[in-house]
Amino acid sequence: MKFNIALLAGDGIGPEVTEQAIKALDAIADVYDHTFKFTKALVGACAIDATGNPLPDDTIELCKASDAVLFGAIGHPKYDNDPSAKVRPEQGLLKLRKSLGLFCNIRPVKAYERLIENSPLKKEIISGTDISIYRELTGGIYFGDKHLSEDGQVASDGCSYSVAEITRIAHLAFKEAQNRRKKLTLVDKANVLETSRLWRKTVTEIAKEYDDVELDFLFVDNAAMQMILNPSQFDVILTENLFGDIISDEASVIGGSIGLLASASVGSTVGMFEPIHGSFPQATGKNIANPLASILSAAMMLRHLDLHKEADAIENAVEKSLELGITTGDINPKKAFTTTKVGDFIADYITHPDDTN
Amino acid sequence: MKFNIALLAGDGIGPEVTEQAIKALDAIADVYDHTFKFTKALVGACAIDATGNPLPDDTIELCKASDAVLFGAIGHPKYDNDPSAKVRPEQGLLKLRKSLGLFCNIRPVKAYERLIENSPLKKEIISGTDISIYRELTGGIYFGDKHLSEDGQVASDGCSYSVAEITRIAHLAFKEAQNRRKKLTLVDKANVLETSRLWRKTVTEIAKEYDDVELDFLFVDNAAMQMILNPSQFDVILTENLFGDIISDEASVIGGSIGLLASASVGSTVGMFEPIHGSFPQATGKNIANPLASILSAAMMLRHLDLHKEADAIENAVEKSLELGITTGDINPKKAFTTTKVGDFIADYITHPDDTN
Ligand SMILES: CC(C)[C@H](C(=O)O)[C@@H](O)C(=O)O
Ligand SMILES: CC(C)[C@H](C(=O)O)[C@@H](O)C(=O)O
Repeated sequence: MKFNIALLAGDGIGPEVTEQAIKALDAIADVYDHTFKFTKALVGACAIDATGNPLPDDTIELCKASDAVLFGAIGHPKYDNDPSAKVRPEQGLLKLRKSLGLFCNIRPVKAYERLIENSPLKKEIISGTDISIYRELTGGIYFGDKHLSEDGQVASDGCSYSVAEITRIAHLAFKEAQNRRKKLTLVDKANVLETSRLWRKTVTEIAKEYDDVELDFLFVDNAAMQMILNPSQFDVILTENLFGDIISDEASVIGGSIGLLASASVGSTVGMFEPIHGSFPQATGKNIANPLASILSAAMMLRHLDLHKEADAIENAVEKSLELGITTGDINPKKAFTTTKVGDFIADYITHPDDTN
Repeated sequence: MKFNIALLAGDGIGPEVTEQAIKALDAIADVYDHTFKFTKALVGACAIDATGNPLPDDTIELCKASDAVLFGAIGHPKYDNDPSAKVRPEQGLLKLRKSLGLFCNIRPVKAYERLIENSPLKKEIISGTDISIYRELTGGIYFGDKHLSEDGQVASDGCSYSVAEITRIAHLAFKEAQNRRKKLTLVDKANVLETSRLWRKTVTEIAKEYDDVELDFLFVDNAAMQMILNPSQFDVILTENLFGDIISDEASVIGGSIGLLASASVGSTVGMFEPIHGSFPQATGKNIANPLASILSAAMMLRHLDLHKEADAIENAVEKSLELGITTGDINPKKAFTTTKVGDFIADYITHPDDTN
């Protein structure tokens, strides 16, 4: 089969890591007889530098016309700590999510047994953790009305949610729970927020259609505690945009392997797949960044395109690289392979799994 | 000296633990020749049960007429998971904060070396952690306009902050930093929120008056990660209401001793002092709840009343109870003392520090 992939490598280490994902996908294409056509487009700081716009119209058009979007990372220090900057890389990402209708961000958080020693948490706490976080991505306070009074004295952000917005992502999360351990936890702040009460009411209603799934509720402050005290209690977590941002980043570090965490953003049309790590400016161009999260994002993309054998092949190669210790310095500083070496290993293993065995 | 203390024991284990704090304060009164006059008032679920109102006017009046408020905990399971309940215990707490102008919530988070094995985090991660969190408590989305459309389809919450609201708590936080390790971290989401950009701008401006304090910024999602990866990097954290709720609860579990964490809420008038743990309904009436957080809240109260020797005396007694292992089952399940036994020990040690030595 033939697939058109929009390649939005972005800033910092984005280009280096997506390059390794492409190698893996090219190997998949060879072995399974597919064609992936990659077309590059600009987003983030590099887009601002080139066009003044963090998300040029061309980029949106390309994504809409593609079968999937492979995303690297965005952000550059020159735009940080400047609250008054009129144009920021992040705006490109937010607009992209909105333009493509990517209302559902999915983040698997798994404690890889092989990497468990890298976790800041004790082994007995983290062991067995396997969470799938469903974060609403195009609503809430991220996209509410923003206002600064003329005299600069009062700022405001509006947060709103509709039943329709909650319903569409809730169904995706319940279906995911059905395919997993059949537990769904809604994270909200229903003791304070009106929007959270609407989430709780709507999700409780929808739960009736999924009576094999156990639904429970957790206030976001308590969730932030439970994620550390007992992360293996969670199966699927469903939450709104801002809480999802915080809780999923918190969750990402408990496994000790943030360099391995991939994510998918899906919705009405094309899906977008990206590592959860950022642009990591300090590492840019040094050939030291961990490409596994980007490679695993490519596997999530394949799964979304219904290429399950192919996704398995990538995931097996990643497992193998962990088993053999062919990893970058963030995983094992004492024996650090370069970004490209890890990428080469993955591609080779996909092509010749037996030789390397 | 004579002090009038409003005693708001609240729900669940609130009465049991505040009773131990009172014992400690009575011992202090004896030794240092003070008088503490405690007057009880209702708040929370018990107030709803008795009066239909989670915060009766009498309670507000009493607090306003007192030198300090000693608070237990609020909340009862019968009000949870009922998003449509018109009256909830939490409303009492929120209204109390607003009525008393308690705009600044202060939460010290310390890794007690003696308890470090109880932490879910590895010893080398948590060791040396000593954070003071300044959370804005009467603004932001907690107190914004709430709205539910007539057809029930759209809910909204407004979040706003003024320069004045940010300024008054920022000064308190900078002063705290000057008395500590001279570092202040502002936690916000300035890459997305207008209110956060106003926080960043205002705090940056105020920092000029405190040139011995180093100011840095962290997005809240990153803060949620850093709190686990490297908590000892933090000195004073300053943040808005909702982020403070999440980050301070997250921080509370890393030390492994949530039963020891106290907090102060201060502002324009009287201060309020409370353990950060909740009403813990499962433990109510069993004489097993850890009273140390409530006792340490009493110490924070004394410090706020400028009774530093007296506060030290309570803190020393708590250290001693940890050293001797005279603690409740949450600290050491193998050798669990009752709530009252721990309270008795603290009061005795305050009265006769040498005998018990
Ligand atoms: C860059 C930022 C706007 C973004 C967000 O907050 O959504 C990021 O933190 C993320 O989680 O993808
Ligand atoms: C009970 C609740 C309203 C409250 C809050 O969110 O402020 C609590 O979580 C706290 O932190 O004191």
